[in-house]
Amino acid sequence: MTMQSGRFDLGTLILPRPYLLFLGDATERGFAKTALGLADWAPDLCIGEYGLPGCTVTAGLPRLTPAEAREKGARALVIGVANVGGVIPDQWMDALVDALEQGFDLVSGMHAKLVSFPRLAQVAAQTGRQLIDIRTPPQGIPIATGRKRSGKRLLTVGTDCALGKKYTALAIADAFKARGIDADFRASGQTGIMIAGSGMPMDCVISDFLAGAAEILSPDAPPEHWDVIEGQGSLFHPAYATVSLGLLHGSQPDVFVVCHEVGRTQILGVNGYTLPSIPQVIEQTIAMGRLTNSAIRCAGISLNSSSLDDAAATVEIERLSAELGYPVADPIRRGPAFDRLLDACLS
Amino acid sequence: MTMQSGRFDLGTLILPRPYLLFLGDATERGFAKTALGLADWAPDLCIGEYGLPGCTVTAGLPRLTPAEAREKGARALVIGVANVGGVIPDQWMDALVDALEQGFDLVSGMHAKLVSFPRLAQVAAQTGRQLIDIRTPPQGIPIATGRKRSGKRLLTVGTDCALGKKYTALAIADAFKARGIDADFRASGQTGIMIAGSGMPMDCVISDFLAGAAEILSPDAPPEHWDVIEGQGSLFHPAYATVSLGLLHGSQPDVFVVCHEVGRTQILGVNGYTLPSIPQVIEQTIAMGRLTNSAIRCAGISLNSSSLDDAAATVEIERLSAELGYPVADPIRRGPAFDRLLDACLS
Repeated sequence: MTMQSGRFDLGTLILPRPYLLFLGDATERGFAKTALGLADWAPDLCIGEYGLPGCTVTAGLPRLTPAEAREKGARALVIGVANVGGVIPDQWMDALVDALEQGFDLVSGMHAKLVSFPRLAQVAAQTGRQLIDIRTPPQGIPIATGRKRSGKRLLTVGTDCALGKKYTALAIADAFKARGIDADFRASGQTGIMIAGSGMPMDCVISDFLAGAAEILSPDAPPEHWDVIEGQGSLFHPAYATVSLGLLHGSQPDVFVVCHEVGRTQILGVNGYTLPSIPQVIEQTIAMGRLTNSAIRCAGISLNSSSLDDAAATVEIERLSAELGYPVADPIRRGPAFDRLLDACLS
Repeated sequence: MTMQSGRFDLGTLILPRPYLLFLGDATERGFAKTALGLADWAPDLCIGEYGLPGCTVTAGLPRLTPAEAREKGARALVIGVANVGGVIPDQWMDALVDALEQGFDLVSGMHAKLVSFPRLAQVAAQTGRQLIDIRTPPQGIPIATGRKRSGKRLLTVGTDCALGKKYTALAIADAFKARGIDADFRASGQTGIMIAGSGMPMDCVISDFLAGAAEILSPDAPPEHWDVIEGQGSLFHPAYATVSLGLLHGSQPDVFVVCHEVGRTQILGVNGYTLPSIPQVIEQTIAMGRLTNSAIRCAGISLNSSSLDDAAATVEIERLSAELGYPVADPIRRGPAFDRLLDACLS
């Protein structure tokens, strides 16, 4: 475990805060998903937003120049917009250089690395600012020890990728805190890390260190403290199951919540893979997870029911709960079903 | 998938051959494990050995100067000796520089990268030679597709690390060939790659690409061709299960052989982890492996019985076979038990 230029603490990634969200020249909300998610989930971290001429998208935050945002205390300019191809277009470059010169660190979750742009690297060196590529994992991640850590842990797992594991973990961590429970959301992916201001980009870690990375993501804590850990992938995804397993073994969760989306029948992004059933996910998660925590248990199901109206969602949630014998809730709809899921997590 | 300076073919690592084995100034055989393994398993690839003054270890090969070895056709100087700390000691440096100047590429599986030594990097650039760090994975590894590939595949799995998965795969591939079967050993670790002359250093691959790396390690092949794939780690190892799972999913084996060592009761290198039973390993390997190959089956057990004499090994092999209902054999002792294991693999 190493400390490195203020970016790292015990091996996890720590971002300078608060943020000014950079929207580039975006004209479609779909490309500004990162900014919209940050404004939703981390409003306290977001001082404002900054768009170039031509930008028509807003995250609903005050529109500020970099100079105004600096005055209000912003420390990092977060690239909150994706570009086709994941690269930094030429028309953003002057604005990014200007931000460095005004004292901002730059934060990016894009595939293209900030440090790979010579002009940014040069200006960052001259100004002493940081270029933080969230897809670059911290140095000094140890090999996992398998040692049981103190404190309690909840992990969100899934029947597939991209159906609500981050959202569910955020909602549960928030609800735990609202009940007066000492809890932390632990981010394991790019957007989650920006929301939390720290975390571990699990999908970028070298294989041998994957479970070790999950171990340092949720360190020893007081006995009644809960780490609510953002899951990744699925044990049933032929490309990403390894990341899911490293997170499961290293997180050694006491409790897991299975995330599923109404109507999803095929694994995303691969051909010919049928979605596992929820009972299959529960069984396999327990079978693999008990290696590092013999007391692992399923608390219930987080159902992404965004394709249904309220009445249909309520029917489906009750039907599934009766079928499976577990609490089922949609964390976006909340209500009594979500309270029952939280009770089951804590019981 | 990329081609890069002759080192890479379809994303796997390809080494220049044949080798001159560098023994440094080693005085203990234990530090020369790589050279000894290469001389044992790849004698056709090894032109000779080269020790510095003071070296008292031999791999049993002709002792040659680099100039003599070049005349006999050697193309790569392989660092066949480990140093405490995994670094290149100063007293080796002149010899390595001299080898580059005489036209050798350098090959290393050490943790310290050859390319990180400025003097080596400079001479390699001047002479146009390659510095090949086997622990640096090839560029351009794709995300796994999960697509079923043609040809047949066997994977060795284990109750733990370091108990015979590489040796078993080598022995089975050799025995298949001796029976006239079209077969290839596929290496997934440093020493295996040196033995095979190509392969994929699975433990160094970025997590997201792990199953994809295993997919390109055993590409489409004729229907009756067998790839015999070196396993890594164990699904029951709290640090390395992820590498095992990526290899299992990406290899999509038709057949697996469980490797176990007589008397091993605790997982190596971690505290408090009991070895799984062989039936547990069979069950979990099938449960996870059927995701990418629904026909996966266990052919039998490879038992490392090196702690027993011949008579005791025979008794233990028969006892275990009766207990488990699978063929059991020690690939080092061979004999009829090994033939029965091969029959079960091919049946």
